[in-house]
Amino acid sequence: MANKRNDTEVFINNKKYTLSGFESEEYLQKVAAYINTKISELKTLDSYRNLDNDMRTILLEINLADDYFKVKRRFDDSENDSDSKSSEIYQLKHEIMSLNNKLEKTNKEIEKLREDIVEEQKKNVKLETELNAERERRIPERGTKK
Amino acid sequence: MANKRNDTEVFINNKKYTLSGFESEEYLQKVAAYINTKISELKTLDSYRNLDNDMRTILLEINLADDYFKVKRRFDDSENDSDSKSSEIYQLKHEIMSLNNKLEKTNKEIEKLREDIVEEQKKNVKLETELNAERERRIPERGTKK
Repeated sequence: MANKRNDTEVFINNKKYTLSGFESEEYLQKVAAYINTKISELKTLDSYRNLDNDMRTILLEINLADDYFKVKRRFDDSENDSDSKSSEIYQLKHEIMSLNNKLEKTNKEIEKLREDIVEEQKKNVKLETELNAERERRIPERGTKK
Repeated sequence: MANKRNDTEVFINNKKYTLSGFESEEYLQKVAAYINTKISELKTLDSYRNLDNDMRTILLEINLADDYFKVKRRFDDSENDSDSKSSEIYQLKHEIMSLNNKLEKTNKEIEKLREDIVEEQKKNVKLETELNAERERRIPERGTKK
């Protein structure tokens, strides 16, 4: 809706009407075109052509209301669908958070295990050094015994 | 829509109409009630009460069509929203897959590192055993020298 009230000429069922309101001319022409399409659709039906004007008007109104209810139903379905998707997104984000936490823990564990390995390897080097020293000490002693 | 064509009496703007069609009576009464609500709303407006019947009818039709376009717009927005959510769900699922892969890799790495630690510890035990054996061998030799 615009702020300025304006007059718009539309043709509905080949009759000219001047509508005064806040809606844009573009929108009102779209609405008029839609109503004319519904009238054209009804005019293809024998059952409609045989009716008096009053009954034709009522049938048009019912058809317009029917379109409203049909799209309203699709809208409600779409909203329900959108709500389910929101819940799914919430759950998926929760799962991602949980996986990231697990991953952080495992990465810390890997870091810790790598440190542990380095410690064990240091111990190994120390023990090998000690062992070599012991062996070197023993060999000359044997040598002296020969 | 049911399969059986049936006649339904409805009151629209206080006039009785017999509608023949496949829609259920319940649905047609809902449609009639909705049209009557729109008429009641229009009747509260001075600008409507001063109009002739033809213009009143056109205004009602425009109001019905306006309701249709409004809900149609909300439906389109909801569908767009639903589409964005579907894309988000797709991305989140992809992220979960990727995180699960990473987690699997890190868990395998943890397993491998634990095996490596056991290997290093075995080496340590072996070296300690060898070192102790060397020391024990050396001590008696020294002893005999005393």
